[in-house]
Amino acid sequence: MDEMTVPMNDRGAYFGDGVYDAAFSANGVIFTLDEHVDRFFESARLMRIELTFSKAELQDTLNEMLSKVDKGEYLVYWQATRGTARRNHAFPPGPSNLWIMIKPMVLPDLYQKIKLITAEDTRYLHCDIKTLNLIPNIMALQRAVEADCYEAVFHRGETVTECTRSNVHIIKNGTLLTHPANNLILKGVARAHLLRACGRLGIPAEERPFTLSELFDADEVIISNSASFARSADIIDGKSVGGKAPEPLKKIQDVVMEEFFEETGYDKHSLATTQKSSA
Amino acid sequence: MDEMTVPMNDRGAYFGDGVYDAAFSANGVIFTLDEHVDRFFESARLMRIELTFSKAELQDTLNEMLSKVDKGEYLVYWQATRGTARRNHAFPPGPSNLWIMIKPMVLPDLYQKIKLITAEDTRYLHCDIKTLNLIPNIMALQRAVEADCYEAVFHRGETVTECTRSNVHIIKNGTLLTHPANNLILKGVARAHLLRACGRLGIPAEERPFTLSELFDADEVIISNSASFARSADIIDGKSVGGKAPEPLKKIQDVVMEEFFEETGYDKHSLATTQKSSA
Repeated sequence: MDEMTVPMNDRGAYFGDGVYDAAFSANGVIFTLDEHVDRFFESARLMRIELTFSKAELQDTLNEMLSKVDKGEYLVYWQATRGTARRNHAFPPGPSNLWIMIKPMVLPDLYQKIKLITAEDTRYLHCDIKTLNLIPNIMALQRAVEADCYEAVFHRGETVTECTRSNVHIIKNGTLLTHPANNLILKGVARAHLLRACGRLGIPAEERPFTLSELFDADEVIISNSASFARSADIIDGKSVGGKAPEPLKKIQDVVMEEFFEETGYDKHSLATTQKSSA
Repeated sequence: MDEMTVPMNDRGAYFGDGVYDAAFSANGVIFTLDEHVDRFFESARLMRIELTFSKAELQDTLNEMLSKVDKGEYLVYWQATRGTARRNHAFPPGPSNLWIMIKPMVLPDLYQKIKLITAEDTRYLHCDIKTLNLIPNIMALQRAVEADCYEAVFHRGETVTECTRSNVHIIKNGTLLTHPANNLILKGVARAHLLRACGRLGIPAEERPFTLSELFDADEVIISNSASFARSADIIDGKSVGGKAPEPLKKIQDVVMEEFFEETGYDKHSLATTQKSSA
């Protein structure tokens, strides 16, 4: 892969003009693939990128690619750019380009606490579209890494939105709060499953913006994405947070993990082994 | 060039993680190169991209590349990405990548009127950095092209900011107004030269935001960028605009054109010929 190349004139290379999606796979099964493919097509539609295949064809191709590697844990990533053409802002006539990448990725231990930082959300107003324009995300994530943290929590002024590659939620007085799925956040697949888990567990969930003060004052702070499902934080900006509602938290985590094991048929013990060897 | 490739793992290709700049050249001279190189280094600094060369070395390389082509009119474009590494939000250790592109481009006839549309400015809050995250710019420019217009004028609510690849200015009651060079616009090199031209001509210039109403009510509407210097619009969103201060407008255009001819030693008649043949 380190030797592979793409056209210099791919619009991704000089405009970041493309969309992507990614899903976690184990045991040869791509988890929640339908939902990821649906979102990918919606991102392309909003960006007016014409894909040259159907949803079913893409699913088939992704599954076929995955069948060529061992049955471990992988991130399956794919992106489409607006095609290959000499640099010019206006759309080129040609077909869009697709690339697919499958890389080994170990599912982290959900029950291990993570640390976060906060960062002002200076992104554009199209955060609902999963595009390749990710500079504010990587700049903030880099600051998190330098602070030895897992993620940066974005906020627009006082309002918490999401993280650089995850959604963020809080539990307060028995209710889960999460930012509404509007143009300020990505409508995460893991987020949808988290909300469904709450529904099944009888935990009320409310889609409304919450503030930085509410974040620091939350009973639990939960981060969700498709490569780690639902993890909780105990530190934000060096201050202790959460840890006050461990039971509903664990129930939610158990439900989303169980769903993963059921859909993929993946063996819990295999997971424990890979987590241990990667630790 | 259509056959050239870049590494698939170039961070430009999947994050748009890079900065660029571009300047117009004629007669083997890159116009206002110092200023473009300064801005490029500033963009890289703000993005924490470590360049592997000095400003003088970049200038030498660009000039050397340009010396290999005929002495016509070109756009000299260069970009630096954060390097080649497998996809991971955090910064890679490796060196940044530089690419340079020289393409024939005819300077348009400055004195020909252009048409514009308006578009809501939904971009991020780092418009002062010339990055490869250009999706909102290309989406708006495409709409302009479909409306048979030259550019889209961005506005945040009522406040006019800039265009997708140009700055925008108005003349009203003898004064030139232009958005301050803060994080909402790119500090254009052509914009700086336009302001200097006003200074030389005794035309007062004020760096303050103006509104959509002021735009439509302006005596003249001027668009500036490094590939067309200073052009004026007569139509925005299908409505007639400007045309009420032709004399100061022409004086400004004459000064910026004269500066171009002086610095490059380019022959006015050569320009007229290429403009004619490309019309």
